[in-house]
Amino acid sequence: MKLSIVSLIACSTVVFAAPYGNGVKNVIMMVSDGFGPASETFARAYMQQNEKLAANYMSVIDKLFVGTSRTRSADSFITDSAPGAQCFASGVKTYNNAIGVDVKIKPVGTNMEAAHRKGMKTGLVVKSHITDATPAVFAAHAANRAMQDLIAEQMGGLVPALGQNVDLMFGGGRCVFQSNSTKESCRSDNKDIWGTLEKNNWNTLSTKEEFEKLDSKSQLPIIGLFSKQNMPYAIDYDINNVPSLTQMAKKAIDILSESTKNSDQGFYMMIEGSRIDHAGHSNDLGSHIHEIFEYWDTIKLVSEYVDAHPDTVMVSTSDHECGGLTLGRDNKYFVNTLKYKNQTASFETSCSKLLELKVSQRGQYVTETMIPVHLGTNVTEARASAIIKATNYNECVVGMRDALATDANIFWTSLGHTGVDVNVYAKGKYTDELRGNLENTDIGNWLTKVLQVDVDAVTKSIQGLNVFQYNYTRSKSTFEYDHLK
Amino acid sequence: MKLSIVSLIACSTVVFAAPYGNGVKNVIMMVSDGFGPASETFARAYMQQNEKLAANYMSVIDKLFVGTSRTRSADSFITDSAPGAQCFASGVKTYNNAIGVDVKIKPVGTNMEAAHRKGMKTGLVVKSHITDATPAVFAAHAANRAMQDLIAEQMGGLVPALGQNVDLMFGGGRCVFQSNSTKESCRSDNKDIWGTLEKNNWNTLSTKEEFEKLDSKSQLPIIGLFSKQNMPYAIDYDINNVPSLTQMAKKAIDILSESTKNSDQGFYMMIEGSRIDHAGHSNDLGSHIHEIFEYWDTIKLVSEYVDAHPDTVMVSTSDHECGGLTLGRDNKYFVNTLKYKNQTASFETSCSKLLELKVSQRGQYVTETMIPVHLGTNVTEARASAIIKATNYNECVVGMRDALATDANIFWTSLGHTGVDVNVYAKGKYTDELRGNLENTDIGNWLTKVLQVDVDAVTKSIQGLNVFQYNYTRSKSTFEYDHLK
Repeated sequence: MKLSIVSLIACSTVVFAAPYGNGVKNVIMMVSDGFGPASETFARAYMQQNEKLAANYMSVIDKLFVGTSRTRSADSFITDSAPGAQCFASGVKTYNNAIGVDVKIKPVGTNMEAAHRKGMKTGLVVKSHITDATPAVFAAHAANRAMQDLIAEQMGGLVPALGQNVDLMFGGGRCVFQSNSTKESCRSDNKDIWGTLEKNNWNTLSTKEEFEKLDSKSQLPIIGLFSKQNMPYAIDYDINNVPSLTQMAKKAIDILSESTKNSDQGFYMMIEGSRIDHAGHSNDLGSHIHEIFEYWDTIKLVSEYVDAHPDTVMVSTSDHECGGLTLGRDNKYFVNTLKYKNQTASFETSCSKLLELKVSQRGQYVTETMIPVHLGTNVTEARASAIIKATNYNECVVGMRDALATDANIFWTSLGHTGVDVNVYAKGKYTDELRGNLENTDIGNWLTKVLQVDVDAVTKSIQGLNVFQYNYTRSKSTFEYDHLK
Repeated sequence: MKLSIVSLIACSTVVFAAPYGNGVKNVIMMVSDGFGPASETFARAYMQQNEKLAANYMSVIDKLFVGTSRTRSADSFITDSAPGAQCFASGVKTYNNAIGVDVKIKPVGTNMEAAHRKGMKTGLVVKSHITDATPAVFAAHAANRAMQDLIAEQMGGLVPALGQNVDLMFGGGRCVFQSNSTKESCRSDNKDIWGTLEKNNWNTLSTKEEFEKLDSKSQLPIIGLFSKQNMPYAIDYDINNVPSLTQMAKKAIDILSESTKNSDQGFYMMIEGSRIDHAGHSNDLGSHIHEIFEYWDTIKLVSEYVDAHPDTVMVSTSDHECGGLTLGRDNKYFVNTLKYKNQTASFETSCSKLLELKVSQRGQYVTETMIPVHLGTNVTEARASAIIKATNYNECVVGMRDALATDANIFWTSLGHTGVDVNVYAKGKYTDELRGNLENTDIGNWLTKVLQVDVDAVTKSIQGLNVFQYNYTRSKSTFEYDHLK
């Protein structure tokens, strides 16, 4: 104790006294994108009902609950994932859609960049595009999350002024790495990023078979993107075709821990349950809970790793709620969680197929497949008709939602995010600091402390660089929280 | 430490080892009825916007946040206040509407009864009827919360088999204590409970003037019921006419602490922010946040008392969420908290007045008073028309809700309760035990432990007594959680 105080005084010009992270070698940040408090209550209740578990059953994350976090961004009470996750990656609030830049559109360093500069190995494991907002804010800098082409280049280490900051990436979104001369591309230019990474000695993989051949001694850097766009929902998985989030997390931890086992420096990873959020956006509670269960499995894996490796700490939180889920509606005092038990496909899969069909074929598809097979229920003619008549994706998912939600007695109030505080879960040294109600930036600042990294130094070294599209102009905003910055 | 372990072994036949509550003389349980997580986020954001406070501003209860509690009852995922609060009062889950009885309609002892038997002084401070569900479950036993006549007699100590268990009561609901031969009565019989309490040497009071004359040395037992039914909403208060929740709590603490200052036994109180829930039921967010602010003030008072008296512990939680409030709706990423700034009257006051008017007078009242003065806004003709056309209370409050909620970009999904986990706040010795995610019964069991009381002994002594209406038959229920009991 005395030593700590002495060190604190001696290091008083440093933001955080050096001893803070002592004993911490590895840090695992987990983001449950769009996972609000009602979603955990519902998922737990579903599990209790389905498995006939006791009233005091604790899910694996209930046991790790330490507090709650506020979620707003610099310019809106309701954040999107970019500034939400940036609070974890850099501790700096910014505007909606921003990637690794501040409110003046100037780059800010991230704790992953700082960790890599310090000699740690780093990894990103997600189910979205690897270049989507949450992973991007840990290793890229762009005025807008839509600048996917640029973000892919930065994350691949192809912008010399930034260098390569990520050693391992697992997820989806291969299309952003492929030249627009290829069929699968979603780039706007003809740069072959994937080919360039191969030339730069990245271990590149895109199939489950290749994934399974990886072992803990496989050489870094590694990029495994297992789908053209987002990876499939857990409810839709063909597990022979793609790895699950838990499988990817396990492989990543094995490789990163093996690669650092003889080093003083450990690893720093971000693992994201990306599609918890996507299912919220389509008000698809069946897919939502299966994403949550996959996230629970991943939490269990990480939690057990922390048990076995006391030099590792983990924290898990959400960037925001998604969907405005309420457990009850219309003055009725019950919730039928098992209404979602027989659902067999995501609304995304189901609705995409519907909208590909000719209008004349849709009635049959809805009444013979979507409702009885995908939703696993039967509905009134009016409810079926609402789905059949859908002319776009949102109308279809709303029709599917309403086919189950009324009987389940739950409600969704938005196809977007909401602003309620979210839960924080943690395990390991120094996690007592995360107890209570936090601002989202507190989590990023805590990560910087336990990592013992100098994010400010990274910011200083990159803030003058033209690594993002300066010609991007932010849309006018009310900046309702300007005075709060 | 060694002593504790020895004692624990020596007392192994006792449910909770005696040393647990050592050092605790007084216990203050606070219930924020119907106060869900989104309500705290909104109230904090309103305060930040209105007072231009920093992003990391912590409300007085944010600073005391320790965890969350699940809320369901024995027979429903969505509880009502009776079994919700019974979990705090006895640690026993029961069916919706039950007061101090188990699922077999057998009486269960409460920690307040046990505390009183042990020699502690006890108090109940609320804004609802003092005989309403939350206070009732601490000191009464009835098959249904609607049995108000019986509950009043029990709480007044007029049922010999139970005895008198409460020394101080402040709140509303005088009508239940008055014979149906009087104008103000809401009893079904002609018993003059109020008069009987006076004869039994209770200090009875019903006005603010009488309240102000009380001092810390005023003699117990005291009953102060300051309104015929519920006490007014904070937004409607004429503070000269009735005491606020904070004023009642302060006076109660002063009297109870003075009365126990020379005793080994302290006091045990329950303070309820009763009408946070009522405002949720009418989806009246303006009234809701003013009830919350009054509750914050009361928490501040209690928290400061704990600071000054380390032999006192406090815990605050909710029995359930109410209203299904979501902070965001309709895919839009903002919340305008200040839409509620100019509201000057509760929907209850406003709508009650409307419905008393002749239909021909309503248009003028809505357009000249309810909208511009009570809501402090202007609305479209369609919105005004919805209120004018209201034929009952619910239609009116829904019209008033919608007049503000769309512009504020918030949603309410029910006029009843919902099932999301609620927040737990605490301060003082042993409150570390409340950290994390809890079952609602855990809070009652914790109270029993820190009070060092024997609730089981009370149960044994009263379980054979016909103190409630045995002829009451519970309505048929699905008992969806029967296997979870």
